[in-house]
Amino acid sequence: MLGSVTQSHRPELDEGVVEGRPTGKEKINHNLKTTTMKKEIYPKLTVVGAGPGDPELITLKAINALSEADVILYDALVNKELLKYAPLDTLKIYVGKRKNKHEYTQEQINNLIVDLAFTHGRVVRLKGGDPFVFGRGSEEIIHADAFNIETAIVPGISSSIGVPGASGIPVTHRGISESFWVITATKQNGELSRDIYDAAKSNATVVILMGLSKLQQITEAFKANGKGQTPIAVIQNGTLATENVAIGSIETIVEEVQDQNIKSPAIIVIGDVVKFHKYYDSLSHQVKYLLN
Amino acid sequence: MLGSVTQSHRPELDEGVVEGRPTGKEKINHNLKTTTMKKEIYPKLTVVGAGPGDPELITLKAINALSEADVILYDALVNKELLKYAPLDTLKIYVGKRKNKHEYTQEQINNLIVDLAFTHGRVVRLKGGDPFVFGRGSEEIIHADAFNIETAIVPGISSSIGVPGASGIPVTHRGISESFWVITATKQNGELSRDIYDAAKSNATVVILMGLSKLQQITEAFKANGKGQTPIAVIQNGTLATENVAIGSIETIVEEVQDQNIKSPAIIVIGDVVKFHKYYDSLSHQVKYLLN
Repeated sequence: MLGSVTQSHRPELDEGVVEGRPTGKEKINHNLKTTTMKKEIYPKLTVVGAGPGDPELITLKAINALSEADVILYDALVNKELLKYAPLDTLKIYVGKRKNKHEYTQEQINNLIVDLAFTHGRVVRLKGGDPFVFGRGSEEIIHADAFNIETAIVPGISSSIGVPGASGIPVTHRGISESFWVITATKQNGELSRDIYDAAKSNATVVILMGLSKLQQITEAFKANGKGQTPIAVIQNGTLATENVAIGSIETIVEEVQDQNIKSPAIIVIGDVVKFHKYYDSLSHQVKYLLN
Repeated sequence: MLGSVTQSHRPELDEGVVEGRPTGKEKINHNLKTTTMKKEIYPKLTVVGAGPGDPELITLKAINALSEADVILYDALVNKELLKYAPLDTLKIYVGKRKNKHEYTQEQINNLIVDLAFTHGRVVRLKGGDPFVFGRGSEEIIHADAFNIETAIVPGISSSIGVPGASGIPVTHRGISESFWVITATKQNGELSRDIYDAAKSNATVVILMGLSKLQQITEAFKANGKGQTPIAVIQNGTLATENVAIGSIETIVEEVQDQNIKSPAIIVIGDVVKFHKYYDSLSHQVKYLLN
């Protein structure tokens, strides 16, 4: 069923050298050096969600986009296994963060998208989770659109829902939580988002992304609202075999995270729904034991 | 009880009489009447998210679960095309709401899951969107677990993120929204969720599910916080070719929804990110024209 989309060959691109630079979204013919064959280029940007980690949590629509890509620009949080759905000769460019190495700025990525769309055609921007959940996908679409490049979006499973879910924590549960609030911990200026202080006052299940380094501050915000006993989970490598979870209360979680050696990136889930996690009973027993 | 079964061809099971009732999750051999063949049954419940509507927004993991299902219990919001991934002889039972017809209660569905897991084996509970976002998936898992039935969860793309996203509305955008708050409009007792009043005060993008019939009340909550000019979109049949969108401000949306003839179920998105919708400029011009 999926065999048809996993492999294909597009040899005419290997032979070609792209020259010139188009300015619109019209079809462009590039002269190829080695033959008189003309390659039609359709500049297009498809921003694709790769899901939360498990490579089976990719959608058919994402696979179809990958299988037709001339170029893929992918991030650190994307499972590399997914690149197999692209043709062998598709350009695959890593634009994520790397320790001690050159990092692409968002502006550079935006420019790369436009350049590659005009020179190569179909650009897939592959992002972890859903591209519109703190993924800056909308900035890339707006930038490409300004150059009259056709754009498309393929939603993905957001880690904010899928990671707790796969771990047995429902973000909503009838009678316990009528809503959930998803927040990025870090603002543009590096400060803790004001929304976290508001969320700490609310009845919502609170899901915080990119918050591990600010866990102490986050717990203070909840303690200030009398929520020291509220259950909380911190999940690293969610949906993967390497998943690592720390569970406790607002009071105990900083120590639990140290004990479990949880590293970034990790998802933080706060609320009574955390009690549904399979390890909650045993871990909360352990917590009680430690506290007594 | 099984009157709504759409397919049922499994000769060996049709001819068989299930005897006894297992109590654990061990393999069970059922003696069949007509032959000495034994059919091994593994009682299992897999709760699967079918995504927001577009049948290509299903994951590989969901397809794998469907392809191994002995029984599928599916809801109204599930795209029926997805049933093709199941074997022909898989029992496919519709348990969604139907006008003027018998409706399954949640308790009946819970019991059906347990009965069918013990008599048929692998039960897939196929739900629209993500099964943990107001899908009552966790209730079904808890019920099955109480009978020692093995359970698994396959997250799906939640309509709360995927429907705005596919329509060009990012739930977050750097500098505009640092968070999004997803709420079901209707509480167990039929009242408007208190969380909507809190959300109307917040800086979050607010996404409301099952809220169309309460749109007037919802807009009142936002007006009470001085947000009459805040952009809002109401999207019916999101991600499908039949998508129908009304866009306006909190002040104008009730009229827009009537003009566009939007019906339930629909997703409501409130916040400045709505300005990124492809029709926002033209529609907001129209709104300005009507107001002047």
